Amino acid sequence: MSRKIKQHGKPDTMGRRDMLKVAGLAAGSALLSQIATSEAKAAPSTSDQWDREFDVIIAGSGFAGCAAAIAARREGASTLVIEKMSVFGGNSAINGGAMAVAGSALQKEKGINDSVELMMADMLKGGRGTNHVDLLRVVCAGTAEAFEMTREFGVKWKDVLLQFGGHSVQRTFQTEHFTGGDITIPLMKGGISLGAIFKNRCKLEEILTDMDGGIAGIVVREDYYFPDENSGTLRRYKVNRGFVACTGGFGSDIAFRKTQNPSLDESVGCTNHRGATAESFNALLEVNAAPVNTGSFQLGPWASPDESGFGYAPQFNQQAAFPYGIMVDIRDGLRFVNENADRKTRADAQLKHCKEADGTIHYPVAFCSEPGTVKSPTVKYALKEGVAWKFDSLEALANNFGIPLKPLQEQVDRFKQFVANGKDEEFGKPIFGFDRALYLDKPPYYAMRAWPKVHFCQGGVNINPRAEVTHMRTGQPIPKLYAAGEITGGTHGESRLGSCAIAETLVMGTIAGKNAARNKARS
Amino acid sequence: MSRKIKQHGKPDTMGRRDMLKVAGLAAGSALLSQIATSEAKAAPSTSDQWDREFDVIIAGSGFAGCAAAIAARREGASTLVIEKMSVFGGNSAINGGAMAVAGSALQKEKGINDSVELMMADMLKGGRGTNHVDLLRVVCAGTAEAFEMTREFGVKWKDVLLQFGGHSVQRTFQTEHFTGGDITIPLMKGGISLGAIFKNRCKLEEILTDMDGGIAGIVVREDYYFPDENSGTLRRYKVNRGFVACTGGFGSDIAFRKTQNPSLDESVGCTNHRGATAESFNALLEVNAAPVNTGSFQLGPWASPDESGFGYAPQFNQQAAFPYGIMVDIRDGLRFVNENADRKTRADAQLKHCKEADGTIHYPVAFCSEPGTVKSPTVKYALKEGVAWKFDSLEALANNFGIPLKPLQEQVDRFKQFVANGKDEEFGKPIFGFDRALYLDKPPYYAMRAWPKVHFCQGGVNINPRAEVTHMRTGQPIPKLYAAGEITGGTHGESRLGSCAIAETLVMGTIAGKNAARNKARS
Repeated sequence: MSRKIKQHGKPDTMGRRDMLKVAGLAAGSALLSQIATSEAKAAPSTSDQWDREFDVIIAGSGFAGCAAAIAARREGASTLVIEKMSVFGGNSAINGGAMAVAGSALQKEKGINDSVELMMADMLKGGRGTNHVDLLRVVCAGTAEAFEMTREFGVKWKDVLLQFGGHSVQRTFQTEHFTGGDITIPLMKGGISLGAIFKNRCKLEEILTDMDGGIAGIVVREDYYFPDENSGTLRRYKVNRGFVACTGGFGSDIAFRKTQNPSLDESVGCTNHRGATAESFNALLEVNAAPVNTGSFQLGPWASPDESGFGYAPQFNQQAAFPYGIMVDIRDGLRFVNENADRKTRADAQLKHCKEADGTIHYPVAFCSEPGTVKSPTVKYALKEGVAWKFDSLEALANNFGIPLKPLQEQVDRFKQFVANGKDEEFGKPIFGFDRALYLDKPPYYAMRAWPKVHFCQGGVNINPRAEVTHMRTGQPIPKLYAAGEITGGTHGESRLGSCAIAETLVMGTIAGKNAARNKARS
Repeated sequence: MSRKIKQHGKPDTMGRRDMLKVAGLAAGSALLSQIATSEAKAAPSTSDQWDREFDVIIAGSGFAGCAAAIAARREGASTLVIEKMSVFGGNSAINGGAMAVAGSALQKEKGINDSVELMMADMLKGGRGTNHVDLLRVVCAGTAEAFEMTREFGVKWKDVLLQFGGHSVQRTFQTEHFTGGDITIPLMKGGISLGAIFKNRCKLEEILTDMDGGIAGIVVREDYYFPDENSGTLRRYKVNRGFVACTGGFGSDIAFRKTQNPSLDESVGCTNHRGATAESFNALLEVNAAPVNTGSFQLGPWASPDESGFGYAPQFNQQAAFPYGIMVDIRDGLRFVNENADRKTRADAQLKHCKEADGTIHYPVAFCSEPGTVKSPTVKYALKEGVAWKFDSLEALANNFGIPLKPLQEQVDRFKQFVANGKDEEFGKPIFGFDRALYLDKPPYYAMRAWPKVHFCQGGVNINPRAEVTHMRTGQPIPKLYAAGEITGGTHGESRLGSCAIAETLVMGTIAGKNAARNKARS
């Protein structure tokens, strides 16, 4: 790294070690150590050390960052949110806007029995029993309150409940436009209205610690243009009460992915935005945050090889084809997995059944009848973009994808019989009586190809239920350091269920922001 | 951490930051930062800074450490090996002494076709394609030379070839007493004869870096008594050419395991020695080593719930019951997996088939006929210790474990037929014609219960094929820092095959020691 701090105002008066000496800061600073040799050593006055100062600084403006900002301001802390990209919201803004809520009013209205315990059990099953149960409990118990908080700030949810893969009941809400932006924008506006400052193109470069290993401040790169690592200007921000890392996952960081698992190379698609990289995770490790499960990447089984990024396929498959239709192997026209199983089960099945040892992929096809698309209005955009196709007969569908018609027709007939009987005899997919009209029945059919993409990082840094980041050596909280959301590991174990990310990020972001702000004794 | 450096000689003359200033060392030092406030600040003379000085210091005295010491001495470097335990050899000394060699003379003699490429293909299949292929190639290509090196130093191998799970040919040697101690003791003696110093009860506490982030030296705790973290005395050792971490895995570190995967708690057995803990991994992260796949622990499917630690079961099951007999579910008397599949396949199958949702375990039973134990002479000790049992009839065996006799008898008859036909029609286990007399046939039967224990850490720090540890931020080698063996991640991907650890550790240990010693430009 050849980056240099551009001193503003006093270019020749501030050397690193002198600064540390005056401030009583410990080093532990990879970035600053690079520049120590090239700078003058005259000591600045103490007040010159920091460019800005806040009670609480939050890195990342997704769900967790917005929730943390609101919570911190409600505690009366001066609050800054930094976002490295030009656009606010990170991966949250491009997600599907689906949130699992345990025990909502709408569930009660529909006679759906749900509870914190049932949601925990579903998430534990999805996570193969490897979840951090203490975190899981806090998340599930906080969903109802977090949901109300979003409504308080104007988030509009549809009055529809969905049952995403791995959930044992319908408990998932979606926003009016089926996008996380429906949440991040009102919450960010809410944070600003409460007095938080949101600053974009401001990248976390490094976290600075004091003599007890607690957080003193951060180094940021202002006026940063991703991905130009030499753009902008380095500045030092002082943190009085707490620094909250809400920096998200690192699914787009191909170098990091390949270090963990070389099979997740450039050839594997990714639903994340380009800025979902690992530098903030590394910055946290530099201050001794305990890593969790660094190599555990979740693949989303509902993505499409016919579009880049998140795209339209995940919505269509989750809302329509997977619950109400079927997914088949194009070579034999047969189903090979419960299309509503958890993500890991489905992605593992796709890779096992449809990818040959030599790497050849036979992309499976997921499809449903027209009524099945009623909960998936974005299908019209997918058709327009050439990601989805409409067929007037099963024969036309079979011909298009090269699927043998006879076994495909028999598979469709079998599935229709399962729906009629209310029981999937092949793979145990839930059949909802009250949705019976939506199931695969007759043409026209809507179809997409489905193939896993890197979607979510199960791993990250370790936190406790107070959202305090723990020290890799001692297991104790690192003073003044908090984290929430995808940058943390453990809550979801080996595999996260769909619509549990918004639940987690809003609950834990709120806890992190509140606890950071209340940390007055440290300031 | 409340540890303090006990200054020997000059207790009040050496403060940390002053020391750093004189030496030009960067901080980044969690341990020393703890003590900075409690010490005087007067600067020592430069020569007082270090207690000892070596060209190459190696931490850990297992296979990798011994191989590194020999290689470093052969390059003429002054060499110290530190071992934190009282006993040398770590997990290596208690392992089964089995080494896979690609293309050995004995294979050629027996007409077994093998190659570096075939061994790589087997390991890649076992690793689910997630191995670091560049490391894998170096390891497999180096096995023949490493095997000869061990013979040069007096290691005695039996003239028998075994086919461990996941290997497609018989390529595994075992030492005369079936233990890694047969290797570590001669290699350690060899290293000493070449002039290396081996120092026990000397624990790596911290790695010290200089201004460019390269390794300057280490802090050790001399006269350490595991696990008393306050025992002994802290000392500083200077490293001139290279520090080599051969500190092994962290399978016995339950706190670390639970952070990565709470299901691997105290209730899960472990084959490792008690000292297999994570502090050296944390010390490497503190100097910015890139972590790999921290949550990937391998479970050994051949362990026994009737003994603690590694014990006798792994030998018996790998050499006798699994290749020549069968493993059955006690509830139905039926096989449920290829007993010679790779470790992950077998352990996953045991957990899936024999553990109920409420946690109840029905330990499966593995057994073979008497001729099948010919390659497993340690079975007599297992009988003596009450871990294995001998039965004069299938009925007696069935009664002892509560297995229904009729389906068990039918299962045995089916398997005998598979052996007669040379093909396992149920699970595809290889049947060796030239070993036919060893297969399950008639009483007496030898049996053990088999259940997974934590055995191996697939994860660790990242290295390149030169055994240089890479920096988490830049991906470039950290100057003067090397690692080999289980402390590194990536070579084995998701699941290591049996007998590939000795292969890896000896090959990479040699490379690490050699490259560290040749690193004269840095000294």
